[in-house]
Amino acid sequence: MIDLLPVDQARKILLQSFHPVELVEISITLALGYVLAESVVSPIDFPSFSNSSMDGFAVISSDLINATPDNPANLKIIEDIPAGYIPQKRVGIGQASRIMTGAMLPEGADCVIQVELTQELPGNSIVQCLASLKTGESIRPIGHDFHQGSRLLPAGTRLEPHHLGLLASIGLQTVRVFRKPKIALLTTGNELLPFGSHLEVGKIIDSNSIILTSLIERSGGSIIQLGISRDSEEDLRSHLDAAVKTGADMIVSSAGVSVGEYDFVRSVISQRGMIDFWRINIRPGKPFAFGNYHNIPFFGLPGNPVSSFIIFLIFVLPSIKKMCGFNDLFEKRIQAILSMSVESDGRESYLRSNATLSKTGEIHVRLTDSHQGSGNLFGLAGSNALLIVPSGVKSLPSGAQVKFILLGDLIDE
Amino acid sequence: MIDLLPVDQARKILLQSFHPVELVEISITLALGYVLAESVVSPIDFPSFSNSSMDGFAVISSDLINATPDNPANLKIIEDIPAGYIPQKRVGIGQASRIMTGAMLPEGADCVIQVELTQELPGNSIVQCLASLKTGESIRPIGHDFHQGSRLLPAGTRLEPHHLGLLASIGLQTVRVFRKPKIALLTTGNELLPFGSHLEVGKIIDSNSIILTSLIERSGGSIIQLGISRDSEEDLRSHLDAAVKTGADMIVSSAGVSVGEYDFVRSVISQRGMIDFWRINIRPGKPFAFGNYHNIPFFGLPGNPVSSFIIFLIFVLPSIKKMCGFNDLFEKRIQAILSMSVESDGRESYLRSNATLSKTGEIHVRLTDSHQGSGNLFGLAGSNALLIVPSGVKSLPSGAQVKFILLGDLIDE
Repeated sequence: MIDLLPVDQARKILLQSFHPVELVEISITLALGYVLAESVVSPIDFPSFSNSSMDGFAVISSDLINATPDNPANLKIIEDIPAGYIPQKRVGIGQASRIMTGAMLPEGADCVIQVELTQELPGNSIVQCLASLKTGESIRPIGHDFHQGSRLLPAGTRLEPHHLGLLASIGLQTVRVFRKPKIALLTTGNELLPFGSHLEVGKIIDSNSIILTSLIERSGGSIIQLGISRDSEEDLRSHLDAAVKTGADMIVSSAGVSVGEYDFVRSVISQRGMIDFWRINIRPGKPFAFGNYHNIPFFGLPGNPVSSFIIFLIFVLPSIKKMCGFNDLFEKRIQAILSMSVESDGRESYLRSNATLSKTGEIHVRLTDSHQGSGNLFGLAGSNALLIVPSGVKSLPSGAQVKFILLGDLIDE
Repeated sequence: MIDLLPVDQARKILLQSFHPVELVEISITLALGYVLAESVVSPIDFPSFSNSSMDGFAVISSDLINATPDNPANLKIIEDIPAGYIPQKRVGIGQASRIMTGAMLPEGADCVIQVELTQELPGNSIVQCLASLKTGESIRPIGHDFHQGSRLLPAGTRLEPHHLGLLASIGLQTVRVFRKPKIALLTTGNELLPFGSHLEVGKIIDSNSIILTSLIERSGGSIIQLGISRDSEEDLRSHLDAAVKTGADMIVSSAGVSVGEYDFVRSVISQRGMIDFWRINIRPGKPFAFGNYHNIPFFGLPGNPVSSFIIFLIFVLPSIKKMCGFNDLFEKRIQAILSMSVESDGRESYLRSNATLSKTGEIHVRLTDSHQGSGNLFGLAGSNALLIVPSGVKSLPSGAQVKFILLGDLIDE
C-alpha cells in the first residue's frame, strides 16, 4: 500500500489542471442542464402586482366584522375580475368585486373571501359573506415572493426545470451559462471491434466507447468521437491530432496505459506534451495515466470496462464539472446500512452493489451476486450503487454504517 | 379532512387508465434512457474465450513450484500474444508466452504470471519467474462473467450507460424498447403571456409551460406543444382537437380547473369525453381534474406553478412511467433527520426544503427560508427536496425521522 496516492489528494492535484470554459448566452428554453455563469438578480418585485390567491370576492375586511352563516354580510357585486384583466372600479364600503385566482386586486379592497365562504343571491348582484376576515387574507401583495435586486440563483447552479420556470417568470429570455466543454474520446487496442461488428474469436466489442459516450453526454460535456486507435504510434498520433484540430478541451482515452503498452503511448504523447503513470489507492482503477497533448489535458483510463467506468466517475467527471462551472464537483457519498459482511484488501474499494430502500425509508446496501472482477460488466449492470470500503479496512461486518455512490434509482425492498 | 381521497388511493385509481405503449427496435447507440420491453438473454458465454487479466507470461503452474526471487524458474519465451491476436503456439513444459491483458490464453498454459513477478534476461528470450502460482491464476476463463442463456437485464430496466456497454459487449446492435409516449401540453388563461414576451401589468409569463416541458422531456415522454389556450370554449376546443390530431397518448393542461373556471373546461371536454374534479389529501395540489378527451387521458393541473409541479411529480410522472414500461413507477421517499421543527395543517404536505449531506453521510432536511405559498417559484427554485409531512400530522419536532423526495443533488453541509 506504500506509495499509493490517496484518492482525495489525486483529485486535488488533477483538478488544478481544469478551469471553467467561456460563457455563452442562450435561450432559457434551451438551458436545461447548463450551469449558470453569473448569479441571477431579479429586475422586478414578484408578484409585480397584488393579486388574489383564491377564487372569491375582493372586499373590505371591516365590512365583514361578525359575519357568520347566520349573520351574513351582504355586499353589492360591482365588477368581475378574471385573471389577466385590469380592474376598472374601486371597491367601496358595502361593495365586492368577483375575483379569480391570480387576478389583480382592485383598489379599495384589502382582502379576498374565498367563494366557498360566500353565497350569491340570484338575480340581484348581492353576495352574502358567511365569515369574517383579516386584512390581507388571501392576497399575495407586490413583492411577496421576492423583491427587485434579490439574488434568485447563484452562479454555479445547474439549471433544473423549476429554475427555468423562475427565470421565465421574471421576464428573462436568455441566461448566461458556461458552454459545454468539448470532450474528445478515443479507445485503443487491436482487439477492439467497433460497435455493430460481428464477434470474432480473440477480439471484443468496444463497449467502453458506448459507456464513456453516454457518461460524457450526461456529464454536461459535448462529445467528439475519435473512434478506435490501433496499437501503432502512427494511428495513435493521427487520432490525437484529430482531437487537437477539433479544439477539444479534454482528451479521454481508454486502454493503452498498462505496463506493456505504456511506453508506446508515452512516446507518442511526450513528443507534443507530457504524460505520467499514476499509482492511486483505488480498486478497481489500474492503470491510470494523466498528462496533456498540445496543452489539452489527457486522461488515460484503464481498458477494463468496470475500472474505466469507476475512474471516469471519480476523476474525469469532477474535471468536466469544473470546466462546466459547477460549484459542487464530487459525487455524493450517502450513508447506508450494510446488510452482509464484506471483505476487502485494504485499498480504497468501490464495489458493485445494490442499494435498496426499506418501507421505513432506511437505505441498505449489499454486494451484487456476480463477481467483482474489473472486466465484469454484468456485475456493474446489475448494480445501482458502488459501496465504498475505505482505505485500510479489510472487513466490514453486516450492520455496519457505510457510504455508497448511487448509480441509478434506489430499489424498493 | 373528511372526503379527501388519500394520495396512494388516488394514484392507484389513476394508474388504471394507463398501459405501456408499443415497442420499437432501436440502435443501442440511441437507447440511453429508454426502457427495455423484453428481458435480454445472452446469446454467448462471456468472456467468449479464456484470456489474461494481467500483462505477464502465460505459463504452466507446475513449472513454477517453489519459485522465489532467490530461486527463480527460468522459462523459454516462445511467442508474443498482444490483445486481439490468436496464439499460434502451444506452451509446453519449460516454456512461456508473453501475454497482454485481455489477450487470448494459449493452449497448454494454465495460469499467467504478472510481469511484476518476472525478470527478463536480456538477449536470450528467457524469463525468470520469481513466484509460484496456482492453476487458473490471472486467467478469466470462458463464461467467467455469464453463460449463454443467462438473463442479463430484465424487461422494465431503464437503460443507463453501463447497461448499454453490457449489451454492446455481447454483440447486440439493437434493443427492443418502449417508444416514447407522446404527451401534449397546453396551458390556459387570459393572464398568460407566452415566454419571450415583455411583462404587462396584471399578466404573468407562462412559466408553467417551461417547467412542465422540461419535466415531460425528463420523464421519458416526447412532448407535443399545444401552446396557450385563452379562456374561451372555442379556443380550448381547438387546442384539444390539435392534441387528438397529433395522436397524443396523454393531454396535460395547467389551470382552468379552479371553482370559477371548471364548468367551462367541463363543458368542452364532456362533449367528447368526460372529466371529474378530484379532492385529494395533498398540499399543495388544488385544484385537480382528471378525465379523457376522445379517449385520450386528460390531466387538469392547478395553475399555481408549485402546485402544478408537485401534482406532476406525484400523479402525472408515474402515469408517464407506466406508459414508458417502467417496473418502478413512484418517486423514492428517502429517510432523513429533520433539523428544525415544522408545523402542518393535517393534510399530506410536500414542503419546499433543502436536503443536506453531513460529513458522516447523514441526510438532514429543513424548510427553505422563503415562504411555502403555492405560487412561490422562488421557494421551489431554492429547494432540492420536498419534505413529506404525513396526513394527520400537525407538527414535527426537530430531530424527527422524516421522509423526503429529492429534486436535485444533495448539498454538502
